[in-house]
Amino acid sequence: MPASLPQLLCRNVGKIARCPVPKFPLFESVDHRPPSCFVTRAFSFRTPTRAPLPKSTKIPPKPRAYRPFPILAAGGGVVSILLAFAQPTGQRPTDAAVARNPKSLEPQTRGPDIGLPTYRLDEVKEHGPKSARPWVVYEDKVYDITDWIPAHPGGEVILRAAGGSIEPYWDIFAIHKSPYVREILQQYVVGKVHPDDLEDGRPRMDTIEDPFVADPTRDSRLLQLTSKPCNAETAGEDLTGEFLTPNEVFYVRNHMWVPVVEDRTGDSHGITIELPDGQEKKYTVGDLKARFKQYSVTAVLQCSGNRRKNMTDYARKTNGLQWGVGAISCAKWEGVRLRDVLVDAGLTVDEPSEDAQHVQFSGLEAYGASIPIHAALDPRGDVLLAFKMNDLPLPRDHGFPVRVIVPGTVAARCVKWVNKIVISDEESNTSWQRRDYKCFGPNETQNLDWDKYKSIQEMPVTSAITRARTKSGLSTQTTAPATEVGGRATGKVVELEGYAYSGGGRDIQRVDVSLDGGLTWDQAKLLDDTHEERGSKKWCWKRWTYEGILPSVEGQDGHSTATTFVVKATDEAYNTQPQCYKTIYNLRGNLATAWHRLEFDVAAGRDGQQDNVKATGAV
Amino acid sequence: MPASLPQLLCRNVGKIARCPVPKFPLFESVDHRPPSCFVTRAFSFRTPTRAPLPKSTKIPPKPRAYRPFPILAAGGGVVSILLAFAQPTGQRPTDAAVARNPKSLEPQTRGPDIGLPTYRLDEVKEHGPKSARPWVVYEDKVYDITDWIPAHPGGEVILRAAGGSIEPYWDIFAIHKSPYVREILQQYVVGKVHPDDLEDGRPRMDTIEDPFVADPTRDSRLLQLTSKPCNAETAGEDLTGEFLTPNEVFYVRNHMWVPVVEDRTGDSHGITIELPDGQEKKYTVGDLKARFKQYSVTAVLQCSGNRRKNMTDYARKTNGLQWGVGAISCAKWEGVRLRDVLVDAGLTVDEPSEDAQHVQFSGLEAYGASIPIHAALDPRGDVLLAFKMNDLPLPRDHGFPVRVIVPGTVAARCVKWVNKIVISDEESNTSWQRRDYKCFGPNETQNLDWDKYKSIQEMPVTSAITRARTKSGLSTQTTAPATEVGGRATGKVVELEGYAYSGGGRDIQRVDVSLDGGLTWDQAKLLDDTHEERGSKKWCWKRWTYEGILPSVEGQDGHSTATTFVVKATDEAYNTQPQCYKTIYNLRGNLATAWHRLEFDVAAGRDGQQDNVKATGAV
Repeated sequence: MPASLPQLLCRNVGKIARCPVPKFPLFESVDHRPPSCFVTRAFSFRTPTRAPLPKSTKIPPKPRAYRPFPILAAGGGVVSILLAFAQPTGQRPTDAAVARNPKSLEPQTRGPDIGLPTYRLDEVKEHGPKSARPWVVYEDKVYDITDWIPAHPGGEVILRAAGGSIEPYWDIFAIHKSPYVREILQQYVVGKVHPDDLEDGRPRMDTIEDPFVADPTRDSRLLQLTSKPCNAETAGEDLTGEFLTPNEVFYVRNHMWVPVVEDRTGDSHGITIELPDGQEKKYTVGDLKARFKQYSVTAVLQCSGNRRKNMTDYARKTNGLQWGVGAISCAKWEGVRLRDVLVDAGLTVDEPSEDAQHVQFSGLEAYGASIPIHAALDPRGDVLLAFKMNDLPLPRDHGFPVRVIVPGTVAARCVKWVNKIVISDEESNTSWQRRDYKCFGPNETQNLDWDKYKSIQEMPVTSAITRARTKSGLSTQTTAPATEVGGRATGKVVELEGYAYSGGGRDIQRVDVSLDGGLTWDQAKLLDDTHEERGSKKWCWKRWTYEGILPSVEGQDGHSTATTFVVKATDEAYNTQPQCYKTIYNLRGNLATAWHRLEFDVAAGRDGQQDNVKATGAV
Repeated sequence: MPASLPQLLCRNVGKIARCPVPKFPLFESVDHRPPSCFVTRAFSFRTPTRAPLPKSTKIPPKPRAYRPFPILAAGGGVVSILLAFAQPTGQRPTDAAVARNPKSLEPQTRGPDIGLPTYRLDEVKEHGPKSARPWVVYEDKVYDITDWIPAHPGGEVILRAAGGSIEPYWDIFAIHKSPYVREILQQYVVGKVHPDDLEDGRPRMDTIEDPFVADPTRDSRLLQLTSKPCNAETAGEDLTGEFLTPNEVFYVRNHMWVPVVEDRTGDSHGITIELPDGQEKKYTVGDLKARFKQYSVTAVLQCSGNRRKNMTDYARKTNGLQWGVGAISCAKWEGVRLRDVLVDAGLTVDEPSEDAQHVQFSGLEAYGASIPIHAALDPRGDVLLAFKMNDLPLPRDHGFPVRVIVPGTVAARCVKWVNKIVISDEESNTSWQRRDYKCFGPNETQNLDWDKYKSIQEMPVTSAITRARTKSGLSTQTTAPATEVGGRATGKVVELEGYAYSGGGRDIQRVDVSLDGGLTWDQAKLLDDTHEERGSKKWCWKRWTYEGILPSVEGQDGHSTATTFVVKATDEAYNTQPQCYKTIYNLRGNLATAWHRLEFDVAAGRDGQQDNVKATGAV
């Protein structure tokens, strides 16, 4: 029997940082040491414990036609996986392994098709996630993956495809589109699909399950960037209308489908905690609720790509979802403290050992990320395993029945549908941890050394204008600095509102507003939402409003033309926002925190209107 | 007997934030509640415990001629005290008290001079700090301040003047130059100075002790901004030559004189810790060394005014010492953890009570400041009571025998010569806590509401170029981005070096360098000094070097002219530096963290030279 991929890899592994071992961008750093959950599985070959999984029976009788998923537009991990392949990084999967074991990578003789039994797709369906022997279909063949599951680097998520075609999932996890993966699969071929179920050598489109079919319906007020997976931002009027964003308009950032948890209470959903010594402890959500003190924490979640579109528009093309200002929301979260659970699980928390430096989370849909151990254990860090969002059970889009909340930290670490927590000496091996969420320098666009910079954790200070409108008459409350500039005011009062936020629990000190493109400044009024705040540090945004006199701007022909509103915030460490996008440009378009600018057409601006407002950047 | 000032104040006091009670800018917020050390004294009238004090016997037989002290140039607290008086803030000391108790402020009848005994200055000298009845001289009168000491809002520092003229100290603590203070003093008059010791109605200059006479001699390599008090920055070549700044060239920031501690070991020096309930516990330095575990922490100290001169030069005038890039240094500190001492003193550290929100420090010379309780108690905060600096006893300029080290926080909180620690529900009442070290907005230059913003604690990210020189020939290691700009390189290689630092324990991720004023960027090489680092977080600077090809810059006449080198750093929360000084301008010139720029004359630049380098700002 030919060597399996993990067997092959384990002969030649080393630390990821030291040598270019064959890599799966999604599950990089396949290592021979035990801490990683994927690796533990790969080498122990122990019987998998099957976490509750989405049931194929949820598929409606007449599934919608399967269309190619807009994966490229979905950005995130998947885009960078594709990029990783596209780039001449010298880390192509082949090089090292070929050098060490040339024979192992030669094309293997395929098993003869002749003599293989044929199966109808209905028969394949019986070998679903819960069957004793799960099968999948790839092209026109049927594979029994039972013996592969324990070794699958991505874990049991492979079962999501059991009973049907694996191709939609490979479209999502594009790493699988390689000869290596097909080689492995080839070992498990058990039959062919009956020709009547095939069209052009593949199962007919209408028989292939859409992985997103069970996704929830989204509120129409959300601005959808992609639907499969769902990525949708909160609209301006919903962003700062309330301090706590209503659940139904809270921005959605999904890397994959939304897992289906059948138990309506979610209480039977399990989380396995693995300590550095390999010991595991399992908790159900019911256990957590019953055995640990529950806390409420109000905290902002923000995507690292919030305002990425601004960076693209005013610097250069960036890779990833082109978010506006709405990939941020604030909610009240309730759950138990991760610290308490880790103590209960047996972790030494006062002086964590060398092999306990990171807390890796993974979710039901196979997303994974990690945070440093000290963030998890800080008694004032308020890291939660949360069950509730704004006094309601977590919506499915936001992690039902349980997600991680790491206040002050990029939302990419707040893993949804969490079912496994591993204490390790290293970061999560996923691309979402080691690649996507980093910022290189403005000039660093090729031959990237992914280990050069740290993963984004604590967020930098940012702010945005979410609404702008004019009204007639002069304000009696404000003397706007604008009059100092043009010399002549329009007589119109402009009302702005927005948010300001900083990570790490750092409070917002001050929000500076300019109505003349940054020439002169005034301070916005910070709304006092402190009565709504819960937690050990300042995890929330500050909503702000500003009222000032619209400056008179003379165009070249003597007519009024556009002016630019600008906002920049300062946090309590007195960090402030960079002025321009170009100087913080990074390939992935992360942390587009430059001053937020809105171009406002003074002539066209009408009372109460904001549709003449568009975002603008700077040099 | 007329009411003393504290008695007067205590009839009408309120929270500082709520009503404009009479204020002493240096000791604002005189409050009727017990937590503040000054207030406790004012109301308990308990017998003062006299901490070791500088002895007047240290004065050389022939003291140097007394000259007016360059206080204005010294900046810091004193400047803002003067400013506070100069500003029409509506908080003049008179208003509220006059409104409430008009009679109390009417000029009081002076005691008749006739019949007062006369004293020679030699006789006054016998009533020094350690005498049973300390006296001071003001103008031509002698005052027995024994009964005033317990009520003195500034504490026992008043004893520094005992045995001689109080006027040099009033020049430093300018707040005393008011009718109120003279009224108080008038109550304690006991005699007149013998006419033979007077000149123009005052003690002769050569008989007045210079408060700075016992200051240590400073290393000639330090760049002195003021000598009395000493404020001196580290020169470029000493800044980043070594990771740990040698003690003798570590920048010096003194607000007053350097206290003299006679005990050469410092072990008998005492620190009193006052808990919220008023309980006090006393420790000598010897106790601390013997009873608590000692720790080593490497940490940067930086003045909030570092690079203030850049802000003045390129934005507008700022108040305070005009530091260049050298008000920052890095050292190894050794001492005991403040947290451990507070636990020993009886403080509840797990969930501090409402009346335990701040830790106030005061030093022998009367300087005072505070940090939030959570900063002091964070087990990973590494806050020390430090005795050693770079393996040697603390130099006198740096706080011998003990100072506070709050890593990641502005040096203004790292109180030197600390002798009192008070756990309080509010910040230190000093001007250094409540006024000087804050940043208002660029437009906020008048009618300042001092309570509007938080005191500077954690420092924002910053960086600077400390050396620049050219050498002939092209580098084989670097391809400078400069070649992309002008199209034609000069062929000269420029070598830059500098530092980057961020507060709060946030590591430096990346240092971006531009040789063409910010048009194109490259990354500096960060020196690996991690083997020297000690502590729970990243408290140190990153030293960096950069080598690139000097760009060719065409002047208007076709000749090469100046180019501008720029550096900006990014920390691990991906905060970065603002681009320009104008947009972060604040009256006090604090946190001048804009991109650091150096103008370089390409034509004049000679190999190995750096004297053609001068700092430049930006719009």
